[in-house]
Amino acid sequence: MRIRDITVTPVAFRDPPLLNATGVHEPWALRTVIQVHTDEGLTGLGETYGDLTHLNKVRDAAAALVGLDPYQLHAAYTRVITSVGAQVSTDQHGLTGAGSNQKTVDAVYSPFEVALLDIQGKAAGRPVVDLLGGAARPSVPYSAYLFYKWSRHPGEDEDAFGPALDPAGIVDQAHRFVADYGFASIKLKGGVLPPDQEIEAVRALREAFPDHPLRLDPNAAWTPATSIRVGRELDGIVEYLEDPAPDIAGMAEVARSVRVPLATNMCVVTHEHLPPAVAAGAIGVLLIDHHYWGGLVRSAQVAATCATFGIELSMHSNTHLGISLAAMTHLAAAVPQPTHACDTHNPWQDGQDVIAPGALRFVDGAVPVPEGPGLGVELDPDALAVLHEQYQRCDIRRRDDTTYMRRFEPDFQPKRGFW
Amino acid sequence: MRIRDITVTPVAFRDPPLLNATGVHEPWALRTVIQVHTDEGLTGLGETYGDLTHLNKVRDAAAALVGLDPYQLHAAYTRVITSVGAQVSTDQHGLTGAGSNQKTVDAVYSPFEVALLDIQGKAAGRPVVDLLGGAARPSVPYSAYLFYKWSRHPGEDEDAFGPALDPAGIVDQAHRFVADYGFASIKLKGGVLPPDQEIEAVRALREAFPDHPLRLDPNAAWTPATSIRVGRELDGIVEYLEDPAPDIAGMAEVARSVRVPLATNMCVVTHEHLPPAVAAGAIGVLLIDHHYWGGLVRSAQVAATCATFGIELSMHSNTHLGISLAAMTHLAAAVPQPTHACDTHNPWQDGQDVIAPGALRFVDGAVPVPEGPGLGVELDPDALAVLHEQYQRCDIRRRDDTTYMRRFEPDFQPKRGFW
Repeated sequence: MRIRDITVTPVAFRDPPLLNATGVHEPWALRTVIQVHTDEGLTGLGETYGDLTHLNKVRDAAAALVGLDPYQLHAAYTRVITSVGAQVSTDQHGLTGAGSNQKTVDAVYSPFEVALLDIQGKAAGRPVVDLLGGAARPSVPYSAYLFYKWSRHPGEDEDAFGPALDPAGIVDQAHRFVADYGFASIKLKGGVLPPDQEIEAVRALREAFPDHPLRLDPNAAWTPATSIRVGRELDGIVEYLEDPAPDIAGMAEVARSVRVPLATNMCVVTHEHLPPAVAAGAIGVLLIDHHYWGGLVRSAQVAATCATFGIELSMHSNTHLGISLAAMTHLAAAVPQPTHACDTHNPWQDGQDVIAPGALRFVDGAVPVPEGPGLGVELDPDALAVLHEQYQRCDIRRRDDTTYMRRFEPDFQPKRGFW
Repeated sequence: MRIRDITVTPVAFRDPPLLNATGVHEPWALRTVIQVHTDEGLTGLGETYGDLTHLNKVRDAAAALVGLDPYQLHAAYTRVITSVGAQVSTDQHGLTGAGSNQKTVDAVYSPFEVALLDIQGKAAGRPVVDLLGGAARPSVPYSAYLFYKWSRHPGEDEDAFGPALDPAGIVDQAHRFVADYGFASIKLKGGVLPPDQEIEAVRALREAFPDHPLRLDPNAAWTPATSIRVGRELDGIVEYLEDPAPDIAGMAEVARSVRVPLATNMCVVTHEHLPPAVAAGAIGVLLIDHHYWGGLVRSAQVAATCATFGIELSMHSNTHLGISLAAMTHLAAAVPQPTHACDTHNPWQDGQDVIAPGALRFVDGAVPVPEGPGLGVELDPDALAVLHEQYQRCDIRRRDDTTYMRRFEPDFQPKRGFW
């Protein structure tokens, strides 16, 4: 079996004005959809970021992978290393840590690896989870992912979600997501308001949801001193505090002074960061993300490393569509150790997708592992065409929450180590 | 697809009087052969240790695995955990580190995991290496594994290999193995003679084989002080020094004082040992062994952890047959990072095996990865019957190099930290 050709399709879909430490989500979110076609008629799906610089690297890698046997993952990785060369991608929003060549290679490789596993699963008549050792759990719990947000993008109509700029708005949002999806864990994206206001919001959530594990993620908006103060105030209230302060050294400083576990998807984002983070005792929880850890198998290996070194596991999310949700679900289902509920932006897409409906659903806040072969999801060609047309029409080619925010708050500064 | 039944067959085969720090190999070596049969007519093969206490645990685990889907590796592992319970196996020869419950579970699980991968490969029409990400190399280099030895077991005829009790004998043995197999690396099992005599043997090998990477493995027979002295004397001569001194603390003490990398298959033998070994900087090379690291997938994950933490990789061998050689070859072929040549006892079995000839061969010291589906080797039922009959006839039920040695040297003491 050989890869005959690979289709790379950028797409855009509506995204609400979600606030974070670097600004606010733009009206359109970008993703790239990969279709790997084999000479035996099988097609594998993958999904990755949509920024133009990344898209171009993905296109180059796609050309380099044609002709390869879909089982040769190491060879595919090697070809992507060659294809990427010395390039380094940096995300404009700065929410997933510093860029590096390693991270760039892993991010470019990831959607192809997922697509090749999709093909392997289809060839064997088996779901991807079975290629990763089988399901350790039949469904994957996700968390309600709460955001401070405006009621609408400036100049547009109100969106379906309403405003959330204070504790009451956050609690309302949580009630809505818990009612609609059944989420049993709740995460608040912080780094938007001064820390005391975010503490107040977490306390309001605790009062409204006494039994839901809670977490707060300010995206490194605080100094270590502030992080220690907040960590002590939220001790016993949050299950973990996510990326309070920048960098491994800052996180380690906080970790030495608080009991609440520290989680990250910013200071440990490639293999290179694990040895110094372990040596410094910087983190208690790693939020794995197959989109930048080099796909599902490599992420499963990182999960094994975490188990060895006593680091708990959770899962990071960027704005994504159903191919990624399927991949995330197969991966999280295949991790043998217990994990925290995974993050997902899925509810914010409000039904927009490129996959045919029905394969993925939330039951009591968890997504049952799709049982069909491969990822268990199929592309909806009409939906893909619509989202691709939206990409062509919209003028966004790189996510940039800061520049968009400055249209409305010209003096806005990203909040790295700010408070 | 379900596991219909599992056949567990102990076997015995002739083994030469190979000397080591704990005594001398007995005339018969024991192994256990696993055949996992599915309801769809596929059979998977596995091979493990033959000690009776281990055999009994393997039999219990076999009963616990019937009915399982061969893709559910995590579930199989969980069933083995339950089956093993709190039991701890300790090897009587003491050459693979201390026993623990974790190591016992991993060792009992290993042959079943290999057999399940064999089935998965056969179901997909793919070699096992392709289930591990594909071949990073088309064939796997092995090292000539030299032993000090007597010319015969006392009371028996001379064996085919001749004596090796001094540098000249060791060099003769190396010439023979390099001529017959094409090995491009050479390992000397030490811990038998006082260190200066073993240094002399290594120097003689260097003179006879100026370009072959060399290694010396005294199985923790030395004190840290002696290890440091030998490490300095062999600096630039051996590619690594394997388990010179006992325990992580001892190895770390040596590592701080020598430049030659230290390798181990004794002080780091389960996941539990990696964090303290990494923290102490105790080792530079890990000799992975899927027989006690929980099978091929878990060993591949350990290899990934080693890559992350800058630990080089080699592979440990116990006396084994062709099923294990096939499994070792698939695993080593699938490890993406460069590895040192793997150890194998294969030449010492002098053609005795349970598999049909032809699938495995040495070319220039390396074994080409079998290309057939699964492990790519088939059981020879007649050969299995012969080796099983030998097991029934021989009176050995547990490898015990020390007690056997004391028949001839009543005062013999195992050489742990001795010199």
